[in-house]
Order: sequence, then C-alpha cells, then structure tokens
Amino acid sequence: MNIDGIPHRSIRDIDDGRAIQIIDQTRLPWECVQVRVDSYQGAARAIADMRVRGAPLIGVTAAWGMALAMGSDPSDGQLGRAYDLLLATRPTAVNLRWALDRVVESIRPLLIHERAQAAITLATQMADQDVATNSAIGDYGLALLCSKWGQKSRINILTHCNAGWLATVDWGTALAPIYKAHDAGIAVHVFVDETRPRNQGASLTAWELRAHGVPHTVIADNAGGHLMQQGLIDLCLVGCDRATPNGDICNKIGTYLKALAAHDNHVPFYAALPTSTFDPAASTAEQIPIEHRSDDEIRFVSGVDDQYRPIRARILADTTPVANPGFDITPARLITGIITENGIV
Amino acid sequence: MNIDGIPHRSIRDIDDGRAIQIIDQTRLPWECVQVRVDSYQGAARAIADMRVRGAPLIGVTAAWGMALAMGSDPSDGQLGRAYDLLLATRPTAVNLRWALDRVVESIRPLLIHERAQAAITLATQMADQDVATNSAIGDYGLALLCSKWGQKSRINILTHCNAGWLATVDWGTALAPIYKAHDAGIAVHVFVDETRPRNQGASLTAWELRAHGVPHTVIADNAGGHLMQQGLIDLCLVGCDRATPNGDICNKIGTYLKALAAHDNHVPFYAALPTSTFDPAASTAEQIPIEHRSDDEIRFVSGVDDQYRPIRARILADTTPVANPGFDITPARLITGIITENGIV
Repeated sequence: MNIDGIPHRSIRDIDDGRAIQIIDQTRLPWECVQVRVDSYQGAARAIADMRVRGAPLIGVTAAWGMALAMGSDPSDGQLGRAYDLLLATRPTAVNLRWALDRVVESIRPLLIHERAQAAITLATQMADQDVATNSAIGDYGLALLCSKWGQKSRINILTHCNAGWLATVDWGTALAPIYKAHDAGIAVHVFVDETRPRNQGASLTAWELRAHGVPHTVIADNAGGHLMQQGLIDLCLVGCDRATPNGDICNKIGTYLKALAAHDNHVPFYAALPTSTFDPAASTAEQIPIEHRSDDEIRFVSGVDDQYRPIRARILADTTPVANPGFDITPARLITGIITENGIV
Repeated sequence: MNIDGIPHRSIRDIDDGRAIQIIDQTRLPWECVQVRVDSYQGAARAIADMRVRGAPLIGVTAAWGMALAMGSDPSDGQLGRAYDLLLATRPTAVNLRWALDRVVESIRPLLIHERAQAAITLATQMADQDVATNSAIGDYGLALLCSKWGQKSRINILTHCNAGWLATVDWGTALAPIYKAHDAGIAVHVFVDETRPRNQGASLTAWELRAHGVPHTVIADNAGGHLMQQGLIDLCLVGCDRATPNGDICNKIGTYLKALAAHDNHVPFYAALPTSTFDPAASTAEQIPIEHRSDDEIRFVSGVDDQYRPIRARILADTTPVANPGFDITPARLITGIITENGIV
C-alpha cells in the first residue's frame, strides 16, 4: 500500500537475494526505518524482537531466512539449524511452521549447489503469493462491504491490533477490504483499538491507515463495547494468527472481548485470513499454544518525548506481579464469517 | 486501610476544619504525596484533575469543598457559587450531586453564623458514614466470598479500575470484601485490569493492594476474557459510578466487556456500591450522561523514567483522531448481584 502516495511492501529482497530489507516496525509510527537483514540469525532476531510481526509476514520472513541460510551454507546441517532457530521465535502463529515446512520440503531433495537459488525463488514466490492471497481477501471483503453496507454514507469498522499490510507483504488481511473500499471511493472509517500491551493498533494500524489516507479514530481497548452499544460500529473486522478447522480463531489478546460485544449488540464480526492460517492439526482451540510474552510489555509503554525522541515510560514497579498472555480464542459461534482468498466461509 | 502497616484514610480534615488533606492520586504509585486544600476552588480542581477520584471520594471531597466555602464566606451567593463549580467537575458520578444537594439542603436554612461549623460537622459525618457504609459492603461481600468460595484454597477475583479505599474515604467498595477477607486470613488473589486510558488499576489498585499486603497480578485490559476462558477467575468484583433502579450499572469504560466475558464463562459478576450510587431519576441507563474525557489521556501515557522521575510518553501523534468515552453501561442481565451496605440485591 501507499506511504504518502508511494507504493511499498513490508519486505523485499535486495542484492540479488543476498539480503532482505524490512521496515523496523518497532520504530513506527515515529519513523519509517528500512533495515537490511543478511543472515538467518538476523531474520530470527527480527521476528523475535517483533521488528516484523503479523502471521503472514512472519511466514515470509522465515522463508527468506531459510533462503539466506542456504546462500551462506546449503548443507543439510544448516537447513536444520535455520529451521529450528526460526521456528522457535514465535509459538502461536501457524504460518511460521507452514512456511518453514514448505521450504524444507522443497529444498532438501535438491542437490547442494541448486539449493540457494531455489530457496530464493521459493521465498519470492511465497511473498508474491501472499500479496495475491491478500488481494483476493480484499476483493471478497469489498464485495461483502458493498452488498451489506453499500447504501450507507459511511461504513464504520472496528479493528483490533494490526492486520494491515505491515502484518503481511502487502494489502493486509483485515485491512485489505478496507483499502480496496477506500480505493474504490467508498467512505470507510476505522475505529482502531490501541491494543495493549504493545499498542500495535495505535502505532501500526493508525500509521498505515493515515499513510494511505483512510479516515480512522484510535480508541482504548476498553471503549469498543460502548461504541457498539451506541450503534456506532457497523461491523468488526480482525485478522487471525491461527484458525481451527471448526472455525475458532486465535488472535491478539482482547479479540474475544470484542467478539462478545459484537454478538451482544448484533454487530457482524468477521475474521480475514489466508487459508494457510488454518491449522488442520488443531481439532480444538484448546490445543493451540498461547504465547506468554515478557512482563516488560506490561511494565513499560514505549513512545516519544516532547522532542519525539524514543523513550519508554515505566508504569509498574518491578515488584508488581504481572501476567501477559498474547492471544485468546474466539469461538466460531461468535464469528459471522471468515474471509479467505477462496471466498467467505 | 494500611500503608505498610499504618492505617490511612484518603481524605481528612486538618486545622480545625479550615483545610483538608488529600493524597495526590496522580502521583501514585511512585510517591504518596499528601496535599493541603483550603478552598472550594482547590477542592474543585482536585476533583477535575483527578487528584481525588472515585465516586464516593468525589462526593465527600465536594462536601468538604462546600465546608471550606462556608468557612471563608457563608453567604447564599457563595453557597451557590461553590455548588455550581463543584458540580461541574465530573458529569457521570451521581454521588457528587447527591453530596452537594445534601449539604445545600442542610446549610441553606441555617443562620449565616451557624453555617461554617454546621458544614464541617456535616462533611465529617459524611466521611464517617462513607467508612461505615463501605465497611458494611465489605461485611456482606465477605459473607458472600465465604459462602460461595470458602472451600477454595485461593479465591481469584478480577477487578477493573480502582474501587478501593483510594476511591472512597476508607475500605473501598469492590475492594472492601477483599480487604475483609484478607484480614480474616482467607487467601484472596486479585487480577487487576490496568484500566486504560488512565491506568487506575495499574497505578492505584495495585499500589493499595500491595500497601495492604494483598496478593495480586496486573494484566492488560485485553487479557481478562482469556483468563476467564481458562478457568482462572472465580468471580468479578467491580465498583460503580451510577446505578439505575432496575440494576444497570455505569462504571469505568471496559466494565461491560468483562461482564460479557463473565456471563459467557459462567463466572459470577458482582458490583459493590453504596445505595447513594443509585440514581432514582435514571429510569433507563441511556439517560446517564457519559463523560468524554481529554484526547490527551489516549495520546500520552504517564509513568516514570529509569530514575523514577515522572515522564509522559507520547504514543500517538496530535494528527491522529481519538475518541475517549470514560464509562460504559453494564446491563442488569449480566450482573449476578449488587453488594450494598444493606445487603446483596
């Protein structure tokens, strides 16, 4: 999508595939810094530190991490080391394992000298495929918006966390239909949950919507239920980190609360996700591992000072116990529909 | 309640009623600063700036504001000016109007020279009455905890915002049963919502629980639903800023979301409040005015730096639109019971 009119992707390869360039998302919304990554260890660090995040982008970054590993040492040992290191970065997003497995299955049968180029080709394909998938999600979502709310002067959509182009290679999942609608001249307005503890809504979703010119309003996570009670939300639209075959979704912590409020107020609640987000092995949502992240995410809030220099404000003493689950499960009974690249289910 | 073993009240009169001493709650949890207030304008500022907050404490502070006004000028004109200024500070808490009306009704019929002392006497009575009321709420709540969860090795309670002794003169409303249980040797543990945007849970509830020695864990507002899904919460217990006769409660924004999650997971959800919080004029919750607070509460997060000096971190640019409703309505159908000084209804 656009940054002030110029098209961007969240990840791209440079130097004939010897490195990748990512946006350091931890420095948004204050500065848009491009970072060069030229090793699988660097790719793993970028994922673990959440310089790149979002289930689809994690998958593509991991695939590029494997390609960088093959570029420096195309041995079976290196293939295994890179796989293990990259897989360990984030436990909840199923796209990570999906992407890594796909690379290993393609690369391992090849001759050593063929592997580096094949891995680059595959990673490139996976990135392009992500863009095409999300564009298709956007088209199906756009059709939904037009058919159900096309007669409204403005469509008000609540979203949680960031499932925009920054969470993917381009378009995003939940935000793809919103970008498509905006580009088609349909008036959309997005209520953006700030999404504690890491504030991806406030710092990423608000930034990318503004960069592309989509009207939006940031709210505290606590406010969404009240807005739905007041009739100010037409639909909720969120992304997903892992889905079960029966339609439960695992997404950023707090999604479940918004789905409950939507259900209580007869507000349609949609999740948008590529079919690769479905985990065929997770027959029940209880089997999905929930990542517990660092206490410091609760203790500190990152921002800038009056001169827009990065600072972090401590809001809790080290002696105060905290708990920080990163995801929750929204059961299928609360979900109106799931928008995928193959249609709405 | 105790601060490191020493009993405290959140407000007390000094200098024979010529001034009051409050705790500047905007500086907690980092320092416990006592502030002297000696005019009704100062009392109004303390309420508006949320140096004192919490429906019951706002009421008592306003009553003391009226007493300070009568101490300097016991005329009818001053009575009206002080009433108007104090009433305008916070629109949602009904205890504010209740307390101010009670003072005016008592003072206006009196001779001019009787008014100052009578107002002091009344404010003192109202403070003592608040303590007795909250203690009674605590007793009824304690009996509830014992009867329903007495057999558990540890009772896990989720609370939102701050309805502790800092929100009242002493004991608190939602936290009164918890203090009574803790003091009686019953193992209670409190999950504390940080309560964006002002973080009263993280900065006030966690502070007062720690000061009194009650085990607790701070969580992001988004996490409560997940904890209930996991079976980690035995009951929810919150305060209230205004209640309707049919049992709807208006409380800090986000309360409704936790009530929905409690209902969905069969977790009992209780509100604790003095009967003065019931607004007989509000036949439906829609009639309760919802305060919309400053955008800056969303744009900035207050905390401390590495040297524990106060700072505020900007998390949103001024160009990002925000909305900041301060309260929401939890309908009676989601509430298991309301704990008052006269019993549980």
